[in-house]
Amino acid sequence: MYKKEISKAVINRLPRYYRYLSDLLEKDVVRISSKELSERMNVTASQIRQDLNNFGGFGQQGYGYNVEYLHSEIAKILGLDRIYNLIIIGAGNLGQALANYADFERRGFHVSGIFDVNPRLKGLSIRGIEIMMMEELESFVKENSIDIAAITVPKSKAPQLAQELVNMGIKAIWNFAPTDLHLPKEVTVENVHLSDSLMKLSYRISERDKA
Amino acid sequence: MYKKEISKAVINRLPRYYRYLSDLLEKDVVRISSKELSERMNVTASQIRQDLNNFGGFGQQGYGYNVEYLHSEIAKILGLDRIYNLIIIGAGNLGQALANYADFERRGFHVSGIFDVNPRLKGLSIRGIEIMMMEELESFVKENSIDIAAITVPKSKAPQLAQELVNMGIKAIWNFAPTDLHLPKEVTVENVHLSDSLMKLSYRISERDKA
Repeated sequence: MYKKEISKAVINRLPRYYRYLSDLLEKDVVRISSKELSERMNVTASQIRQDLNNFGGFGQQGYGYNVEYLHSEIAKILGLDRIYNLIIIGAGNLGQALANYADFERRGFHVSGIFDVNPRLKGLSIRGIEIMMMEELESFVKENSIDIAAITVPKSKAPQLAQELVNMGIKAIWNFAPTDLHLPKEVTVENVHLSDSLMKLSYRISERDKA
Repeated sequence: MYKKEISKAVINRLPRYYRYLSDLLEKDVVRISSKELSERMNVTASQIRQDLNNFGGFGQQGYGYNVEYLHSEIAKILGLDRIYNLIIIGAGNLGQALANYADFERRGFHVSGIFDVNPRLKGLSIRGIEIMMMEELESFVKENSIDIAAITVPKSKAPQLAQELVNMGIKAIWNFAPTDLHLPKEVTVENVHLSDSLMKLSYRISERDKA
């Protein structure tokens, strides 16, 4: 339907469009001009038109965008028109933060299970989801259709765990361990490297202070 | 010393170089060729040379890179040759995860204080840092030299809090609330939008499944 090879920069901006449109929907805004959307989002109106043209447009010259329609179309592009079963490996603070984040559930990311090695966490629940032990992981993955595994274990454990998850048939990993995972190409990996983010911040602070 | 206007893509890769070089240092590797570094990092050797040339090189043709020297030079570029005092606003799971992350401390990001509105958290400590109440924030910021504020409060509270922090003199914000902050240009903001990251993952899963 739309042309292939969408640039990484466009893909990086799509979730942001979706977020802004979600906010507008919550405020019952029915229609928005690309000018107004651009002012809110702090990008140019032509950038917005150009980005959306990658997927066939959605706006009518002079009429602006229908918020609900654009929101649902971007949802489809982002693959948000289905449910994803997600497991979280590592029930520390970060794993618990992810499990508690109700917004994910609202967007179709259903937390199916949480796993940890710490026997003291066994049987505890987060948002009604019982923490299971790692010995239970393989059979759980086999019995349930799991789409995404979030990894919040220490860096030293992450590469082997990721490989094991792939062996169990997991095809998408949301990696929070501060290390890159080297996995087969058919496995989709999205990294959240918090320390990289903090270093980008210190880079920009030191550049600013030099100026 | 080095030419200005380093591209965003290069800046995004620098923390990754730093991370790999830190791992090599830990393994007592003294010297590495750009070819070997490129294989480990899964980027081309010419990309590495090109990136580092932005800052004046650091390698000698045929000799490879001195790991310790390159590590310390990249640290300087990233502004890691100084200490940053960081406060965390929001002592929920995510705030606690950040406070517990010893790696940040090791790189010079010192957690000076943690703040929350929940009176039940008053007096509790995370890694020896006592959780303070929001009423204490302003005087704490005035009495201490705070470089960075990490915001892990709900989305609805984040914009006003960010504005208040700026009014108190904070010039860098590490924002985890799923909303963009519109702040004066002189304030450096680095966003970690977890839901955007998850949507990028679902986009790539759905593109993969279409193929």
